[in-house]
Amino acid sequence: MVAATLCVMFAPTAAGPGIPEIKAYLNGVDTPNMFGASTLIVKIIGSIGAVSAGLDLGKEGPLVHIGACLASLLGQGGSDNYRLKWRWLRYLQNDRDRRDLITCGASSGVCAAFRAPVGGVLFALEEVASWWRSALLWRTFFSTAIVVVVLRGFMEYCDSGKCGLFGKGGLILFDVSSVSVTYHINDLLPVALIGIIGGVLGSLYNHLLHKVLRLYSLINEKGRTAKLLLSLGVSLLTSICLYLLPFLAPCTPCDPTLDAACPTVGRSGNFKRFNCPNGYYNDLASLLHATNDDAVRNIFSTGTPTEFRAISLLIFFAIYCILGLFTFGIAVPSGLFLPIILMGSAYGRLLALMMGSHIYIDQGLYAVLGAAALMSGSMRMTVSLCVIFLELTNNLLLLPIMMFVLLIAKTVGDAFNPSIYEIILDLKGLPFLEANPEPWMRNLTVGELAAAKPSVVSLGGIEKVVRVVEVLKSTKHNGFPVVDQGVPSPIGMPTGATELHGLVLRSHLVAVLRKKWFLKERRRTEEWEVREQFMSVDLAQKGPKIQEVVLTEDEMDMYIDLHPFTNTTPYTVVETMSVAKAVVLFRQVALRHLLIVPKYQGAGISPIVGILTRQDLIAHNILGAFPHLAKKEKSESTNS
Amino acid sequence: MVAATLCVMFAPTAAGPGIPEIKAYLNGVDTPNMFGASTLIVKIIGSIGAVSAGLDLGKEGPLVHIGACLASLLGQGGSDNYRLKWRWLRYLQNDRDRRDLITCGASSGVCAAFRAPVGGVLFALEEVASWWRSALLWRTFFSTAIVVVVLRGFMEYCDSGKCGLFGKGGLILFDVSSVSVTYHINDLLPVALIGIIGGVLGSLYNHLLHKVLRLYSLINEKGRTAKLLLSLGVSLLTSICLYLLPFLAPCTPCDPTLDAACPTVGRSGNFKRFNCPNGYYNDLASLLHATNDDAVRNIFSTGTPTEFRAISLLIFFAIYCILGLFTFGIAVPSGLFLPIILMGSAYGRLLALMMGSHIYIDQGLYAVLGAAALMSGSMRMTVSLCVIFLELTNNLLLLPIMMFVLLIAKTVGDAFNPSIYEIILDLKGLPFLEANPEPWMRNLTVGELAAAKPSVVSLGGIEKVVRVVEVLKSTKHNGFPVVDQGVPSPIGMPTGATELHGLVLRSHLVAVLRKKWFLKERRRTEEWEVREQFMSVDLAQKGPKIQEVVLTEDEMDMYIDLHPFTNTTPYTVVETMSVAKAVVLFRQVALRHLLIVPKYQGAGISPIVGILTRQDLIAHNILGAFPHLAKKEKSESTNS
Repeated sequence: MVAATLCVMFAPTAAGPGIPEIKAYLNGVDTPNMFGASTLIVKIIGSIGAVSAGLDLGKEGPLVHIGACLASLLGQGGSDNYRLKWRWLRYLQNDRDRRDLITCGASSGVCAAFRAPVGGVLFALEEVASWWRSALLWRTFFSTAIVVVVLRGFMEYCDSGKCGLFGKGGLILFDVSSVSVTYHINDLLPVALIGIIGGVLGSLYNHLLHKVLRLYSLINEKGRTAKLLLSLGVSLLTSICLYLLPFLAPCTPCDPTLDAACPTVGRSGNFKRFNCPNGYYNDLASLLHATNDDAVRNIFSTGTPTEFRAISLLIFFAIYCILGLFTFGIAVPSGLFLPIILMGSAYGRLLALMMGSHIYIDQGLYAVLGAAALMSGSMRMTVSLCVIFLELTNNLLLLPIMMFVLLIAKTVGDAFNPSIYEIILDLKGLPFLEANPEPWMRNLTVGELAAAKPSVVSLGGIEKVVRVVEVLKSTKHNGFPVVDQGVPSPIGMPTGATELHGLVLRSHLVAVLRKKWFLKERRRTEEWEVREQFMSVDLAQKGPKIQEVVLTEDEMDMYIDLHPFTNTTPYTVVETMSVAKAVVLFRQVALRHLLIVPKYQGAGISPIVGILTRQDLIAHNILGAFPHLAKKEKSESTNS
Repeated sequence: MVAATLCVMFAPTAAGPGIPEIKAYLNGVDTPNMFGASTLIVKIIGSIGAVSAGLDLGKEGPLVHIGACLASLLGQGGSDNYRLKWRWLRYLQNDRDRRDLITCGASSGVCAAFRAPVGGVLFALEEVASWWRSALLWRTFFSTAIVVVVLRGFMEYCDSGKCGLFGKGGLILFDVSSVSVTYHINDLLPVALIGIIGGVLGSLYNHLLHKVLRLYSLINEKGRTAKLLLSLGVSLLTSICLYLLPFLAPCTPCDPTLDAACPTVGRSGNFKRFNCPNGYYNDLASLLHATNDDAVRNIFSTGTPTEFRAISLLIFFAIYCILGLFTFGIAVPSGLFLPIILMGSAYGRLLALMMGSHIYIDQGLYAVLGAAALMSGSMRMTVSLCVIFLELTNNLLLLPIMMFVLLIAKTVGDAFNPSIYEIILDLKGLPFLEANPEPWMRNLTVGELAAAKPSVVSLGGIEKVVRVVEVLKSTKHNGFPVVDQGVPSPIGMPTGATELHGLVLRSHLVAVLRKKWFLKERRRTEEWEVREQFMSVDLAQKGPKIQEVVLTEDEMDMYIDLHPFTNTTPYTVVETMSVAKAVVLFRQVALRHLLIVPKYQGAGISPIVGILTRQDLIAHNILGAFPHLAKKEKSESTNS
């Protein structure tokens, strides 16, 4: 309840895992309030609340988000809202450093969650980041190295039991290294089966989660009370199920040949006594009456082939499927990793149990493989999952079959639907720019695309203040091309040519209006006259909106020399270029605006044909403007 | 001798590791004959010869090259020269698929060399590839998965000793997982020291190797005999040193508390008897009279603190430094990994020995850390080395200090000189395009760069055959802009405009001339009339040179319609753009030609200002044309 209340009242952006939004941010889409101080605090407290309520959710996603928030605040030099700012940190306040910091924060989060430093780096590389530079590789590596050294230090300190459960298990969360892995050609089939089922179940899970999230968004629109009630309802359902279900399971006599304490009564342990007489344990209670981490550890436990009965595992699997689907969308910080690992390990172990003596690999390892397969089937990662599981379980000899399973599950899953994060991105309506253009984009030129839009609004090099204000108020564009008419002729050129001077940003125009850097006459001043008056920091400040700038009648009649504020080297494409190639350029060079220039050269031709932004290049939006492409695409896909 | 003779006579490109050339190829620079069938065969046989001669070189680099060669041949559908072609493989015959295949081949090579599948993927990502797509991640992952499954299968088959030494050590080459790693704050300092020394030694090694390679290139210019003699000399030197040096070492009595057989007489083993009486062993012989792999295994051996004396380790380190420097440049297939691992492990263990009881970590682990530090100090990789060492040694708990050491060594090394592969690339004069432009490139526009070049040669849309032939013969350009003069006016445009139609490639022009697709009159035909006559495959074929095309007088007077062969959507930049931004575009979108368009729009202005190629954007070449930039850069770097 604390978690849900905090999320609903103070920071709605703290709900959910936060990974899709980080992914979108690194792609160039900023979600407001995503990395603020309030989000951070709510996320930390909310995550503690949600996990300790025993809900079927993980702390991994939230930890990634917490890492990204911390990184973002550090990059800004503190929070804007709470007047906590260190001036010496402001040099990191540019887009690229901010993006790098957030990538490092995300990988540190994964590292802290799974104690998997290399896995964290690869997760950032494979899933989160849109642009990757080699410098980023060792930077993220450095940050996860620091995380793991600090973790190790705390564990050293907590070794004597000073800090409760913290540090239990050491650096390896779910150690299965004690079993020696021997496998034969016979194992190939069941292992492939695990991969296939993992892919099918993973994509089915994605599909169902999509439906549930759409249902939830209808409920959430009803207001804060509805959100709160939904969260409380799910929490209540979880508690009831987890407490009551173990009564269904019969008591199992302890196996005296095992070393482990049986039955255990304390907080953690593999053989919970619950409602059983001494010498007996309740296997379903061992799974359900434990923290999520302990439940995974119990299912992964090796050398205990008779510990869990098939029916208990089946009940566990079923209840966690249902809970997982209904828990994810509620208004608390929640991660997807652990629920999927729980489900996957249960079905893996169940499968191994059903195969009985036909397999040579330990049931615990099958549980690991099942978890990996379901993760891959739902999230469609390969290398990073492989390394994360390697670092979680510390069993290097499992690597070949692990890779095999992950690849099969990913391939099967990809045949049905996109990955879970892409589905969430799509649901949230974030304009994510994919790395590869769609095939039909090759049949459309940027000129045709520009013709379908309202014609481009360009400004003169020296423009009247009143026109600048008008343009800013009447449009919502963030960039305007600057065109000089009839420029003084360079050597060997006829007079009367027009010049594409560059691109000026809305925020810079507003800053100029606010600072009232005006000229009395329409006269092209030397650039330095104006430039001397400002530094790049002046323009970079977050300014007010255009509506808040007050100008007098006299000022409205003056002029602005836009030349010093213009980016004189915007990236351009010729109008005949296909949209596909423009998308590649836009995405690879990480642009916000792309100018379209004409292919003809002659008198009277405007030097600018149009301007493209991210929204213009999103496949969905293009298909809206050119419905025949959508139809063609559809008919082609039915034909093929 | 077999290795050197083969390399010198049949495939000079098979000498050395081949990794820099693969790196250059994936950056867009093709080295002739690098991936041919003869190179492959010489590389395989030569590598076997060189390794079995006991030279101080590794089989890792050659294995990477072999993987790349196989991939390239597969992509071509077989060898061009030997008429072994499978037609059904020809669909992979485009640049991107070829690049992807070679990346997969390189990662498979690393995987096969170190039995490190994830390390192979990361090596390809961090060191080899210039462009990375997420699809490439799982493709390389898939290929290394296959490699490891096949390896595992062979090991299973060879388990009963059918295949000699193959499969010894299982999937983990240098297993040190038996030691539990416990470390304290006291260990931080010696570990940091290892990193720092690793960085210093690594960069010193790079520096000295650079000098030796320059000396060798002078010797190699003297002809094949000189090359051959050099190789034989180094081989002789190696044999003499390795055989005679152990006589310097006194005999050490066997430690009866150890389980291992002592002394050993057979092929492999930790305690070689050599010239000692029974019950004694010669520690230097244990290191020098073993295969390189066994030597590493012996130095990495844990729980044997008194096995090697400091003086033996010092001799070993010194002799391998000298041999490593002089062996690398000779005309045999050679890798850098193993020599550096040998040196690094020796100094790591030496350091641990000298610290004596002040350290808590096992000497064997110090040897591992030393090897990692020296590798990182020389090659400047981080994540991939970390994973490779993890997969080599199977000790996950070593991970935090391993990361620490790698980062320190890389940072220290970067302070002195570039990585070894960059040095080799530079020595070979390959125009490698760096990911980041130099800072001074921001002060130069592409217009200025184009003005310093010979003016651009452009063709008309319909051009006389004689002029096309002339242009092709008199220039060496690979691409020509196509400009149409006085095009029929589109609606609302004055007549007489010129149109930048696009870019036509030299190879396509030659193909057209060879096929004699000519027109009788200067008349712009409908595109389809010509296009019907050819398919894209016709143009993609490797054609003869222009000098070999024979044309009659009559044909010379005819015309070619270039429109159907022109790439109508080349990437362009405006002349005012800075070279830095052009480099970013060129590199990110992976271009061969970049057209420069004017910023002015008006009658009489040429629609094309210039054309940029890879060579124009290499920092070294620009500094040649603009010496003042070089001076400025130098003075700035002295000031700062």
